[in-house]
Parts: sequence; C-alpha cells; structure tokens
Amino acid sequence: MTDAILKNYAKLVAVSGVNVQKGQPIIIAADISAAKFARLVQEACFDAGASDVFMNWRDEVSARTHYLKAADEIFDQFPDWLVQRAKHYDDKGVGYVMIYSDNPDNLNGVDPDRIKRFAKISREKTTETAALRMSNKLRWTICAVPSPSWAKKIFPDLDECAAVEKLWERILKASRADGPDPIAEWKAHRESFVKRVDYLNEAQFDKLRFKNSLGTDLVLGMPKEHIWKGGGSVDKDGLYFHPNMPTEEIYTAPDANRADGKVVASLPLSYQGSLIDGIEIDFKDGKAVSYKAKEGDAVLKSIVEMDEGSARLGEVALVPNASPINQMKTLFYNTLYDENASCHLALGKAYPTSIVGGAEMSLEELAKRGVNHSLTHVDFMFGTEDMCIWGIDADGNETLIFENGEYKF
Amino acid sequence: MTDAILKNYAKLVAVSGVNVQKGQPIIIAADISAAKFARLVQEACFDAGASDVFMNWRDEVSARTHYLKAADEIFDQFPDWLVQRAKHYDDKGVGYVMIYSDNPDNLNGVDPDRIKRFAKISREKTTETAALRMSNKLRWTICAVPSPSWAKKIFPDLDECAAVEKLWERILKASRADGPDPIAEWKAHRESFVKRVDYLNEAQFDKLRFKNSLGTDLVLGMPKEHIWKGGGSVDKDGLYFHPNMPTEEIYTAPDANRADGKVVASLPLSYQGSLIDGIEIDFKDGKAVSYKAKEGDAVLKSIVEMDEGSARLGEVALVPNASPINQMKTLFYNTLYDENASCHLALGKAYPTSIVGGAEMSLEELAKRGVNHSLTHVDFMFGTEDMCIWGIDADGNETLIFENGEYKF
Repeated sequence: MTDAILKNYAKLVAVSGVNVQKGQPIIIAADISAAKFARLVQEACFDAGASDVFMNWRDEVSARTHYLKAADEIFDQFPDWLVQRAKHYDDKGVGYVMIYSDNPDNLNGVDPDRIKRFAKISREKTTETAALRMSNKLRWTICAVPSPSWAKKIFPDLDECAAVEKLWERILKASRADGPDPIAEWKAHRESFVKRVDYLNEAQFDKLRFKNSLGTDLVLGMPKEHIWKGGGSVDKDGLYFHPNMPTEEIYTAPDANRADGKVVASLPLSYQGSLIDGIEIDFKDGKAVSYKAKEGDAVLKSIVEMDEGSARLGEVALVPNASPINQMKTLFYNTLYDENASCHLALGKAYPTSIVGGAEMSLEELAKRGVNHSLTHVDFMFGTEDMCIWGIDADGNETLIFENGEYKF
Repeated sequence: MTDAILKNYAKLVAVSGVNVQKGQPIIIAADISAAKFARLVQEACFDAGASDVFMNWRDEVSARTHYLKAADEIFDQFPDWLVQRAKHYDDKGVGYVMIYSDNPDNLNGVDPDRIKRFAKISREKTTETAALRMSNKLRWTICAVPSPSWAKKIFPDLDECAAVEKLWERILKASRADGPDPIAEWKAHRESFVKRVDYLNEAQFDKLRFKNSLGTDLVLGMPKEHIWKGGGSVDKDGLYFHPNMPTEEIYTAPDANRADGKVVASLPLSYQGSLIDGIEIDFKDGKAVSYKAKEGDAVLKSIVEMDEGSARLGEVALVPNASPINQMKTLFYNTLYDENASCHLALGKAYPTSIVGGAEMSLEELAKRGVNHSLTHVDFMFGTEDMCIWGIDADGNETLIFENGEYKF
C-alpha cells in the first residue's frame, strides 16, 4: 500500500472515526506489529488538534507467553493502576482509537480457564470506563490493519507479503478508504442509513422472527421504545463518530427476557485468540438453555457462563447480502469484519442507548425495560443468503422485512 | 546473530543481570524495535521463576512526534497513574530490566525546554521508585541491543544490515555474552574486581587528583567512609545483581562540596536523544561555576541547571584503557557503553550506598556527609590514554594510582 493511501486511511480514522476535537487527548491502542499505521494515526490525531496522544502498545506474541507461563493467580488480578489510568484519561474526555490486527489463533492451546478468569476480572474492573463508551459519553472507534499472522490465516495459500497486501486491499475497500476522499464517502455512507433506521424505529415491532435453511428459527421480543441505529453514533454533545470502521449493520437490543427458539451460527467466531465454530444455541424466555460448538466448546461455555447476563442477548443486527464485506466472500476471523458481512446477535451487555432515555437510566431501570446487563458482549454471526425476517406487531400482524438476505423496505 | 546466542544473552540478563527470584514480578522496558530480544528476556525471566512479566513498551518514533506536536502544557505534567504503576510493582519487590536501543539523534531539533521540563517533572514524581533502585532495595539491570538507527549512527558507512550485525558483535563481546557460558564468565568478571576495590576502600584517600593532556586538572574531595564498588551490586537481602551490562568501572561518590579545577570531556554524550559534545566545566567548592559545550550547549545547560544538586558531582568512576570496550575504539553514542570505555564523572544524584550506612540515612544526613542529592544523574566521560590520578591522604601524601590510563596497584 502506498503511503498516501495509508495516510488517507489514518486521517479517516482520526476525523470520521473518533472525530478528534481541538485540545482533546486520544489513546491509541495497537499491537506493536501495527506500529507503522498507528504512528500515522497519531500524526493525524495531532493534525486534527489533539493535545496529547497516548500510545498504548500491546504485543500479542509476549501476551501468549504470559498466558502460558505466568503464575496462575495472576489471572485473577487486575492492577488498580490500570483502572486509574483509564480514569485519568476518561476525566479529560479522551477519545479511544483501537487498531485491531490480531492473529486469530494467538491463544490456541492456552488454558481457557485462564482466559475466562482474566476476562471476567478485567471486565469487572473496567465497568466504569466501558460504560462511558457504551453510552456514547466518550467517542471511540475500532479499525483494523493486517498483520502477517492474520493475513496468512485468511489467505493460507499466499506467501506472507502477498497475503498482507491482499488483506490491505480488502480492508481498505471494506472501510471505504481506497478512494480519493474517504471522509466524504463516509458522510454519504452515514446518510444512506437514515431511511431504513427511521422505518424500523417508526414500526416499533413487538417481535422479530428469524428463519433460514441452516436451522435458525428464533423469535425475539423487542423492548418498548427501542431504538435502531446504524451508520455511526452521536455523543452526548451531538458530535458524530463511528465506533466501527467498517460498519454495515442496523442494530438495537432485543428484550433480554423474550428470546425463544433456536439459532445456528453461520460463521466461526474468533474470540480472544481462540476460534469457536459450529455454534448452536436454544433460547427459552431470553436465556440460552442449551448450547454447543463443534470447535471451541469450552471457550463458548466460558462466554455463556461468565455471569447471569452473558446467557442472554444484548444486540440484534441486520446486515444485507449486498454488504460489500459479504460480497468479498472472505471469512476474516475477526468480528469487526465478519459481523458486517452477516446478520448477527450478541450475548451479554446491551447498549443502554438502545432504548429512549436509556443512557440516563440505572442498571435496575434498564433491567426492568429488558435491556440486558453483563460484563461481556460477544457478537456471533447467523445471517445467510436465504435469511428471512418478519416484524410482528402487538396484535400479531406479520410484515416480511428481510427476504433471502435483503431488506424488503 | 543466531537464536542460540541471543537466548544465551537473554538468560544472562535475567540471571546475572536482574537475578530473577522465584515468584518475583519483573518489568521489562524496551523499545518496540527491540521486541525480538525483549521477548527472549521475558521467556528467560519466566524460566528463572518470575510470577509475572510486565512488558513496558515504548516507541521512540512516536515519542519524537509527541515531543514535536503535543500541546505545550503536557510537558509540565506527569500522570499520577504512572506513579501508581511504579508503586504497584515496587510493593511486590519487582525487578527492573531496561533494554536500550536508542537512536542517539532521536530528539534532535526538539525544543530543549520541552525535554528539560518533562525530565524535571518526571524525576520529581519518580523520586520514590528511583530511590529504591539507587539504594539497592530493588534489583535492576540495564543492557543494550542494536536498533538500525543506532547502528547506522555508529557505522554510517555500512548498510543497515551490516551495521546492525557489527553492533551486535560489539555488544555481545563487550557484554561477555559471546562465549558458551556467559553466566560463568560474569561470575569470574565480578570476582576480578575484588582486589582493586578492597585496595581503594582500605586506602580511604581524602582527595583524588586527575590530570591529562586534554586540559583536565581536577581535585575531588572524598567523603569520610566512602565505599568504592565495581563488578556488580548486592541488594538488601544479599542477592547480587549487575545494574549495568557491560560494567568495567570502579566507582564511588566524591564530596559534593569539594571539587576544584577544570574537567574537559573526552567523548561526546548522548542524552535523551540529543548529542552534547566538547564539554568543559570549571568547579569551585564542588559546584560547576562555568561550563560550555561546543554542540548541545542548551541541553547541557538544562542538565546543570535542573536543580541545586545537578551542578555538583554524584559519581566518580575509574575505567582503565585495557577495558575491552575502550579497546574497540568505537564511539557508541550511548552512556552505558561509552562510560565503560573511559574514566567518568556524573553530575547530580549520588548513590546513597557510596558511604557506610548511607542506604539508611535521610537526605539531610547524606547532605551533611557530602553525598549529593538531585533529581538527575548524568554521566560524562573524561578519561584519556594519558590520564593520571593521584590519591592524596589527609596529610597531603600523594600516591600515583593511575598512570597513562592504567591502574598502578
């Protein structure tokens, strides 16, 4: 990739992604293998007026060694200084940029119990900072760049250089960052969501029914005054940002207590360095009452059983077959990409902003309204080319809103 | 360099350097360009029994951008979470491994005032954690690995690969890590210092006089009950460690109030990414009363004027011409290496352990005994091939202890 294209992508992340404001501090979290691009984002953030850019480096190679070799009690500990660090920047209104380049197989063979315990304590200790982002009080964005290990996982038959180059092409195309003016393209993209989001918000279906030939047959109850969103978010001050780049989904939270039926995942899920494939879950009254995976069953169990809310749904998202990412017919082993190729659900925490006034509600009020709470939030894909979805109103009238993987409205 | 040699060097750093103990946490601070070696040290620390290894990555490229582009007030701030982080690990008895690979020119052209202000606030806020290391309460070690930018600075006529390879050879030779059993070699090296250190400690000279053809003519008063050290240190529990790898010096602290005469530096000094060359300092009653540098004069000024103690001496170290690093006739632009090629002095903080009982004394008691205090500690080299040094006792009797750059005892 040429430097000019990478600079354009970095500027897109700073401007359209996290929308850096003058005098704002920014945190960039990146693996050291993504240093070249992370530095370009740093420059772009300063150019957009950032006062300070904290580079939060991680290294997945030494992280794997840590999981394999550290003392066992370490995985039940989350140092206070990490909480204080988050608070230090959150109090200054920081913007978060997360650059993903993860090797999907990085933690293969690591004791899933260590992953589960550390994930749990981390989420418990970072509830406060995570809530600021999930309720749009702070702006944030996630984007991706290739790493050799990730690229080789997707394109195992290519040599490393060719695989990285091909993944760059896919990423830049999917992120609408390969043209001369990505920022204008994202503005147009954002606006393209408005009509569909408005339709669903006005319809206020009481239930959605999903059915396809893979075996999914699921009815989700919808909370009163639920809000569908898509094409980006708006923070508490009215500033837009794009939490995910790319984004092709229209999403909201289903009722945590009203999911019934079966869901069969259509794509494998790469979760913290482990692959989970062949997921099937049966829901009753909102709860996953039985579940299994052909591969990574123990990791799926660690997700579902993390807490009370992790066995319930926190997100439902619609993505049409026409999504440019779906059209690539590429399994990315990366949720940011794969979830934007396919209709998906998430186990765990719902965005409080999924219902009217939700950002200001207590956890108790949200629970009463059916908005799920959990320490975790894990997306998995269940969309297919023959997916059909019906909206059902309170009187039981059905409207076909999605047919053979495409919007009907 | 072969993987086997690098692994041997990494093991040396873990075992002979910081001397990892079973169940001890370790912090490894490294630039991301040194990731390959830092990961080997991480493995070696775990193999030696570390409970947890925190990888503290930095990136000098984005650090330069930060110095150039961050808001001006940032350089007067040192976030509390960094203090809390140090305390978190210090309370657990952490061992520190610092891996240097710095580009000597990294901060060229950066406003020296920004460097000075941030250095000052950093040192103020890290006094407590630094004191634990300077008084040998916590074990620590500094070692080095090549980076392309550093290697090209030393060997500008070689291509990048050849320069890195040549610097690796020098580093491994200087660090006595190129043989089959570096740990045994370091044990022998440590023991070789004993006789000379004992001689100087028994002599308890009242003054030292330094003279050479470069223009140095300096008399340093020595504190009562001063302690010369060399070949490594011993922590509060009696565990050895090597703060510097390599180490060729025998050193102690001169009296902060009794330095008189002129010192002319014999090598340039690379300080936080800036080069200072052609240093000349006149001392009177321990204080630098006039000073200049042909290059980097403003940076020298920022060091000398940081606080009251930074204009006084905190270390005097003897290094013979026979030092293998001196024999390489290579200017490393790196204090860890250059100071072990040449007799040197340090402006600023003295090691409290330089006098009997010093580790347990208050700053006031130390000051009364002539042991310097400052937020900074900056070594500079003044040894030459014709350096002569006399020890002078309280009655004025002179003993030649160093002639034409070699020990006389």
